[in-house]
Amino acid sequence: MSINRISKNELLANYDTFLFDADGVLWTGDIPVPGAIEWINLLLEDPSKKVFVLTNNSTKTLEQYMKKIEKLGFGHLGRNNVISPAIVLADYLKSNADKFSGEYVYLIGTENLKATLENDGGVKCFGTGPDSIRDHTDGDFIHKVDMSIAPKAVVCSYDAHFSYPKIMKASNYLQDPSVEYLVTNQDYTFPGPVPGVVIPGSGATSAAVTAVTGRDPKVFGKPHKPMADFLLRRAHVDPKRTVMFGDRLDTDIMFGNANGFSSVWMPTGVHTIVDIHNAKEKGQLDRIPTFTHCFATGD
Amino acid sequence: MSINRISKNELLANYDTFLFDADGVLWTGDIPVPGAIEWINLLLEDPSKKVFVLTNNSTKTLEQYMKKIEKLGFGHLGRNNVISPAIVLADYLKSNADKFSGEYVYLIGTENLKATLENDGGVKCFGTGPDSIRDHTDGDFIHKVDMSIAPKAVVCSYDAHFSYPKIMKASNYLQDPSVEYLVTNQDYTFPGPVPGVVIPGSGATSAAVTAVTGRDPKVFGKPHKPMADFLLRRAHVDPKRTVMFGDRLDTDIMFGNANGFSSVWMPTGVHTIVDIHNAKEKGQLDRIPTFTHCFATGD
Repeated sequence: MSINRISKNELLANYDTFLFDADGVLWTGDIPVPGAIEWINLLLEDPSKKVFVLTNNSTKTLEQYMKKIEKLGFGHLGRNNVISPAIVLADYLKSNADKFSGEYVYLIGTENLKATLENDGGVKCFGTGPDSIRDHTDGDFIHKVDMSIAPKAVVCSYDAHFSYPKIMKASNYLQDPSVEYLVTNQDYTFPGPVPGVVIPGSGATSAAVTAVTGRDPKVFGKPHKPMADFLLRRAHVDPKRTVMFGDRLDTDIMFGNANGFSSVWMPTGVHTIVDIHNAKEKGQLDRIPTFTHCFATGD
Repeated sequence: MSINRISKNELLANYDTFLFDADGVLWTGDIPVPGAIEWINLLLEDPSKKVFVLTNNSTKTLEQYMKKIEKLGFGHLGRNNVISPAIVLADYLKSNADKFSGEYVYLIGTENLKATLENDGGVKCFGTGPDSIRDHTDGDFIHKVDMSIAPKAVVCSYDAHFSYPKIMKASNYLQDPSVEYLVTNQDYTFPGPVPGVVIPGSGATSAAVTAVTGRDPKVFGKPHKPMADFLLRRAHVDPKRTVMFGDRLDTDIMFGNANGFSSVWMPTGVHTIVDIHNAKEKGQLDRIPTFTHCFATGD
């Protein structure tokens, strides 16, 4: 099968808002995709164009992310050009201040996510870091689980300290239906530093908690709705004049298609033309991109 | 709604093989259900009747389970009357000795399950006990994961030491499609010693590994097929003359119905008449029991 190419000139003529996934689109690992920096800078110089980088990575603070962007050569991008599930989730907590302001949130996630949710979301997070059982021979640990803090929400994200006691605490907090179940993103794996080594992502932690509790989480990352709603509210974009560039069919392309944007698949990341073929065979039309494009050649 | 009662005399007349779930049917916690001991003993004394206790609990060795059974007053039950996913799984490993004999299995489970799989299944298990990350600030742990042993299977079960590194190891081993993915049972919670406290079960660990790997496990506990196949092979039972007593619709009653047995729901455990009503409303006919019964009154 083939995907229609769209040229740089057609993109500039047809769209006002340009959304980019980061890893696999603008860069792969620590190397910029050829032509990406020039293309981003061209768009940023045009006052009629809006540019956003939409990442599902919530393990960095925005400050750390901006440092990475600058180091890779995308220094013209500013803080307001970057949107992550952590930012959308913090905005959600702040927008519902009557429920969350100054209240506790149980967080299965990183210290960086904690910083974002506390600084920008106005909540107090607890639960990060190691929480493991050294010995449970007699099963007595069940009596020793400290449940003294009553959080207003449980947040699941990537956590290298994920453990049985964390599943247990999250599940018990979520027995109260007024405690909200919030998930940054459901990527089951993410690109790691060692080729061929699988790195479990946020989706691993929320899969366990969802299985035990039977509860349906509110998910903030691509391809889910809250990130698009945030974008529409914050930037007042016109979906018909918006295009999403991505390498993953199940997050980026679905996100574009589900929100009435055009979608451009980039062959520089996780999914291949074979994956698009397979999606078509399975009738998963929401994963089929509108176009493909090459930054370096402009078509 | 109402469920047809079946009397002791009808049960004795219509069935030769009697299958019982344990907790919630024969006992609740440490208290025998009224009439259960007398009923079991009556069946065991009748040479024309076969009796099996089918538990999904794989955290005890058979020896430990027999001690519990004796302590509760069911001392007439012998080792051959008890079947658990651990026993069925060990039998599977032993029956496929050409692949598994003397080979490594990566086990997310308890020391007791390890003992059963090693002693009765003929494999060498590794991975039990604590495997947690004390600090992952720099992400370097990804380079330090020891993947030097190549197992023939990954087994998921209940593990209070469940952790992120365990999900990561299991997921990486399972990248090789020849490595089998075996799960004792998928109960998401199990009854704990503290009322109202949720205890995550085997299903929590396999949910995370399944999400990350996208692989479909072979599950050995109720309501899945391997336990019924084991029973049919080991005891040569006639499904039409077999009846399953259970308290859970999603494990016990489904197990009975799926295998052509009659099913008797006991109101002494997890699920209530409201759950049966809801299952009927949802059209989940495989969860609707054939009968109900009371040991103490005989009907």
